[in-house]
Amino acid sequence: MSTSTTLATPPGETVRDPLLEAVRGGVTVYDLGRPFYAGMPQSPNHPAYTHTLPRRHGDKVRPDGGSAANDMLVMGTHVGTHIDALAHVSQDGLLHGGADAAAACVGGRYPEHGIHTVAPMVCRGVLLDLPAALGVASCEPGYEITPADLDRAVREQGTEVEAGDVVLIRSGWGGRFSDPDRTVYIGSESGVPGVGEAGAYWLAERGVRAAGADTIAFECLAPGQGHSVLPAHRVLLVESGVYIIETMNLEEAALHGVHEFTFVLSPLALFGATGSPVRPLAIVGRSAEAAGEADRRG
Amino acid sequence: MSTSTTLATPPGETVRDPLLEAVRGGVTVYDLGRPFYAGMPQSPNHPAYTHTLPRRHGDKVRPDGGSAANDMLVMGTHVGTHIDALAHVSQDGLLHGGADAAAACVGGRYPEHGIHTVAPMVCRGVLLDLPAALGVASCEPGYEITPADLDRAVREQGTEVEAGDVVLIRSGWGGRFSDPDRTVYIGSESGVPGVGEAGAYWLAERGVRAAGADTIAFECLAPGQGHSVLPAHRVLLVESGVYIIETMNLEEAALHGVHEFTFVLSPLALFGATGSPVRPLAIVGRSAEAAGEADRRG
Amino acid sequence: MSTSTTLATPPGETVRDPLLEAVRGGVTVYDLGRPFYAGMPQSPNHPAYTHTLPRRHGDKVRPDGGSAANDMLVMGTHVGTHIDALAHVSQDGLLHGGADAAAACVGGRYPEHGIHTVAPMVCRGVLLDLPAALGVASCEPGYEITPADLDRAVREQGTEVEAGDVVLIRSGWGGRFSDPDRTVYIGSESGVPGVGEAGAYWLAERGVRAAGADTIAFECLAPGQGHSVLPAHRVLLVESGVYIIETMNLEEAALHGVHEFTFVLSPLALFGATGSPVRPLAIVGRSAEAAGEADRRG
Amino acid sequence: MSTSTTLATPPGETVRDPLLEAVRGGVTVYDLGRPFYAGMPQSPNHPAYTHTLPRRHGDKVRPDGGSAANDMLVMGTHVGTHIDALAHVSQDGLLHGGADAAAACVGGRYPEHGIHTVAPMVCRGVLLDLPAALGVASCEPGYEITPADLDRAVREQGTEVEAGDVVLIRSGWGGRFSDPDRTVYIGSESGVPGVGEAGAYWLAERGVRAAGADTIAFECLAPGQGHSVLPAHRVLLVESGVYIIETMNLEEAALHGVHEFTFVLSPLALFGATGSPVRPLAIVGRSAEAAGEADRRG
Repeated sequence: MSTSTTLATPPGETVRDPLLEAVRGGVTVYDLGRPFYAGMPQSPNHPAYTHTLPRRHGDKVRPDGGSAANDMLVMGTHVGTHIDALAHVSQDGLLHGGADAAAACVGGRYPEHGIHTVAPMVCRGVLLDLPAALGVASCEPGYEITPADLDRAVREQGTEVEAGDVVLIRSGWGGRFSDPDRTVYIGSESGVPGVGEAGAYWLAERGVRAAGADTIAFECLAPGQGHSVLPAHRVLLVESGVYIIETMNLEEAALHGVHEFTFVLSPLALFGATGSPVRPLAIVGRSAEAAGEADRRG
Repeated sequence: MSTSTTLATPPGETVRDPLLEAVRGGVTVYDLGRPFYAGMPQSPNHPAYTHTLPRRHGDKVRPDGGSAANDMLVMGTHVGTHIDALAHVSQDGLLHGGADAAAACVGGRYPEHGIHTVAPMVCRGVLLDLPAALGVASCEPGYEITPADLDRAVREQGTEVEAGDVVLIRSGWGGRFSDPDRTVYIGSESGVPGVGEAGAYWLAERGVRAAGADTIAFECLAPGQGHSVLPAHRVLLVESGVYIIETMNLEEAALHGVHEFTFVLSPLALFGATGSPVRPLAIVGRSAEAAGEADRRG
Repeated sequence: MSTSTTLATPPGETVRDPLLEAVRGGVTVYDLGRPFYAGMPQSPNHPAYTHTLPRRHGDKVRPDGGSAANDMLVMGTHVGTHIDALAHVSQDGLLHGGADAAAACVGGRYPEHGIHTVAPMVCRGVLLDLPAALGVASCEPGYEITPADLDRAVREQGTEVEAGDVVLIRSGWGGRFSDPDRTVYIGSESGVPGVGEAGAYWLAERGVRAAGADTIAFECLAPGQGHSVLPAHRVLLVESGVYIIETMNLEEAALHGVHEFTFVLSPLALFGATGSPVRPLAIVGRSAEAAGEADRRG
Repeated sequence: MSTSTTLATPPGETVRDPLLEAVRGGVTVYDLGRPFYAGMPQSPNHPAYTHTLPRRHGDKVRPDGGSAANDMLVMGTHVGTHIDALAHVSQDGLLHGGADAAAACVGGRYPEHGIHTVAPMVCRGVLLDLPAALGVASCEPGYEITPADLDRAVREQGTEVEAGDVVLIRSGWGGRFSDPDRTVYIGSESGVPGVGEAGAYWLAERGVRAAGADTIAFECLAPGQGHSVLPAHRVLLVESGVYIIETMNLEEAALHGVHEFTFVLSPLALFGATGSPVRPLAIVGRSAEAAGEADRRG
C-alpha cells in the first residue's frame, strides 16, 4: 500500500485490502434515499423541509469574475429519508437504558442519546420484500406485517437475519411517494402498512442493529388514526436500542432482486439531535450482482 | 444468496458477493466528518448551523405513556463537513460545461447542477498526508501546497492517484478544529494552507472524481485576505467538474497511516441545492488494515 | 414640555401636544392583528410560521441564579397579519413605477421597493363593514365585493373615504380564523369573499394609502381556483402603489361600531423584504368612543 | 361620525374623537426602531437575523403575466429592536409573580408569560437624554447610569416620570449602531453604558410600564464581562413586571428635543414566545412639535 508497507511485507507478497479489491472489481450502488424537496411528503409533526437560495449567481460577482451561490435549509430531522436516534422516543418518562427522558436533555441537547452517538453503519443488510413473499403488488393500507409474514419472506428469499444486520422491510408503499397528491404517501386517512408490536419484537429478538421501512412512520397505522400509538418505536428504540430508518426507497433494489448486500448509512453527527436525514446505500459486489440479475430474469 | 439463486447456480458453486465477504471479514471505519454543533467553526458567508428542539420529552405525552422529542435545523449547506455541487461556483457567468449560471437557476433551484445530481461515491480514496511528506507537524498558515509537494506525498506514501479516485489532502490544519477560539480554525487573519491553482490543476489532470481537505475553504488563503479569490474552486468545480469536500477530519486516518481505502460519501439528495452536509467514510478491510498498523508501528 | 420650552412660550400659555392630551384623556385600542402560532391558517405559498425555544429556563443558569429563555422564529413575511411591500408583486415584469422586477432585486434584496421603505402609518382609518351594510352575517364564500357595495357601506356608515386613509374591508370571513379546521379560513375549496378588480379601482381612485381585509389573500377567490389570478394585487400594488394588509381581525372593532379611527401600523423595517408581519391598531379617543357605544346600543 | 351617531348627538354638536382630530391636525412620527438586515449588530446569544427570498420575480410567472416574490425569515426574537416578555428571564427558578419557570413552559410555549400577553402600548412616553443632562456627547463605555443621573435628566428636561409611562433611556450609544465594525455597537470588549440595579429600581418605583434603551442589552455592561450578570433584567422583568425594550434608535428624537410624546408599540402576538421584534414610535402632535422645534433652535 505504501512504500514502507511494502518493505514490511514478505517479498513476493502484496498486502491487499479485500474490501478495496472488491470495490475495484466493480460494485452496483442502490440509492435507498428519497430526494429532498419542498412539498415532499413528510410527517406534519415535524418542521417542513424548506430550501432557499440566499445567494444566486450574479448577486455578488468578485472582481475576477467568480461568483458563488449558496443555500439555506430549514427542516426537521425526521423528514425525508432519516434515522431515529435513541433520544427520539421515550416511554413512561424513560429512554432506552432507563435514563430519565427529561434529565437526558441538557441545555437543549441530548448529549448521551443524540444522533451523534450513532456510529456509521457498514454491515450486512437484508431487504425483506413482503409483497414478493405474500404474492401481492403491495401490502394493503393499514395492513400489519406479522412475524409469520417476516418468516415467510426470509424463507422465500433465503436470507436469514443475523445479529448486527440492518433489516429493511419493504411493504410496497414506497411506490406512492411520487404521487402528485402528497397525502397519498402520508396515508393519514387510508392507513399505512407496517410491522406492529409483534413484528418489532421479531426484529429485536434477532439482534438487528437498525430496521428500516419504505414508509414515513415505519409503523402499521390504522386508517384515520394517525400516530396515536407507536408500538414499534417503543419496542425498537426504547426497549431494544434498535435504530429506525424511515421513508426509504426500496423499489429499485427489490426490482433487481437484491435482498442481501453491504449496507452503508452515515448519519450526520448533529450533536444532541434526535435524528438525522440520511442517504443510505445498498452496495453489491460484481459476482453477486450478476447472479442476482440471472435470478431475477430466470 | 437466495434460494432461487442457488438453484440458478451450478451445483457445488456458491455465489458470493466479494464486497460483502470483505465486510463480514471485518472492516475499520474511519469517520472523516466533523460533528455539527452550534458555534462550530464555519464560513461566515453561510447561514449558521442552528439546532433547536421544538419538542422535548414531556412536552406532549400520549395516553399510553409514549413521548417524542424532535428537532429543527437551520443551516447553510456549506457548513460543517460538506460537499460542493457544480451549481456552487461560476466563472464569468458560466457553470461547468458552459451553462449560463443565471439561467441555470429555475424557480430557486438548480435542476441540472444541484447536489441531487451527484451520485453516491463508493470508490478508491487516497489521503495525501502533506505534513508527513514534508516532515512538518502541520503546513503553515497560508502555505500553498504545490504540485511538487503533492508528487512527494504520492511518492513517499506509494499511493498513485488514479482516474476516478477521491483524493483527500491533509494539511494538518484540522488539529485546530476544536480550538476553543473558533476563529483559529476559520483562519481569516492567520491565513490557511491549501492547494492553489497549480495544485488544483494537478488534481484535475489526474481525473479525480472529488477532492477534499481538512480546511473550511479547501483553498490556500493568504493572511487577512479571506475569500477574495478562489482559484482551486474555479479549476476544480467550473473548469473540471471535480467536486470539493471541505472541513474533513483526516487526523485519525493519518494517525493510523491509512492512505488508501474505500471511500464512501453519500450526499443528501437536496433537490437543486448547491451542496450538502455529509459524513464521509474511509473504510479499510481487515488484512490491509493489519498491514497498515504494522507499518505505522515499525 | 421642557424647561427651556416653557421659557420659549409666551407667559400664561402652556404648550400642549393635542395628541398626547387626547391619549391622556383615554383611548380604546382595538387590536387588528391575529395571534401567530404554529398551525395557524396561512397561505401554503409561504414558509410556515414556526416557533421554537432554543433555550428554556433551567437550560443554563448563571451563578447568580438568573436564567433566560429565548426563541427562534422561522416564517414567511406573508403569514399571519401582515403588510405587502411594493416589491411583492409585479406585472409583465414590472414593479410599481415601472421598475424592472428582476433588476430591482440586488443581491437578494429589494433596496428600492422593500418593506423597509414603508413609513409607519399614523393616520385616519376607515373600516367598511360590508356584512352590516348588506344586511348579512357574512359575505358568502367567493362573493365579489363590488363598488356599489363599497358605496353602500360608506353611505350607511357615514364614513367618506379620503385620500391618505387606510381602508379596511370587513367581509365577515374573519370569524372563521379560529375554526379548528384551518382549511376553513384558508378557503381554497370554498372560495373566499373579497374585492375584485373593480373594487380595487374604487379604492385606488380614492387615493388610499393602504387597504386591508379580514382574509388571507385580500382578493375575491373563486371556489377551487386558489391564487390563479390576483387582480386586486395588480391594481393596488403594481398600478397604484397602495399597500395591502391581510389576515386582519376586524371583528371586535365592527362589533363596537368603530368605523372611523386613528390607524397605526408600524411594519418591521426588514431591509429588502417583500412584506412584514404586523399588529395594526385602531385607536379611538374617549368622547368619540362613548358616542359610538351609545350608537351601537341605540 | 356615522349617520346614526349624528342622530344620537344633540343638534348642532358634532361628536369628535379628540385623538383623530389631533392626528388630522398633523403629527410628526419618530421611528424608534432600527432596520433589520443580515449582519446587523445583535447579541450572539440569539439566532442571527437571516432573510432570504425563496421566490424572486421571474421564478414563477402566472399566465396573466403576474409574479410574486416572497421571503423567509429566520431570527431570534431578541435581535434588532425588540421587547422582552416576562417569560424571558427568571431568577432562582421563578418568573415574575412567582410562577415556576420550568413549569411555566407548556409544550414549548409560555402560555401565561409569553409576548402574546403584552397589550399594545399607546401611552405617554418620556425620553431621558442622559448625555444632554450630563453635558457629554455620549455616556462612556461601561458607564453606569445612576438614579442621580436619571433625576438630573428629569429635572433638566422638565419631564416627570409618571406611573404607566414608557421611559426610554438614551445613553448616546446608539450612534455606534451603524459602525462598519458591528462589534463596536455590541461592545463586548469595550463595555456598554446603561442603568444598573439602582437605576432599575428607580424606574420600577415609578411604576413605569416599560423601559427602553439605545443598547442591545439595556444593562450597564463592564468591559470584557459580557452578560455575566443582568441585574436590571432581574429588577424590571422578574421583580417588577416591567417590560424592557432594546436596540432602540433614540437619536432622531433626541436631536429634535422630543422628550415627551405619545408612545406606540405593538408587539407581534407570537403565542408563547419570550419577546418580539418591534418598531416603536414616538408621535408628536403639531403644536407641541412646533414649540419643540422653536426650543431646539433657540
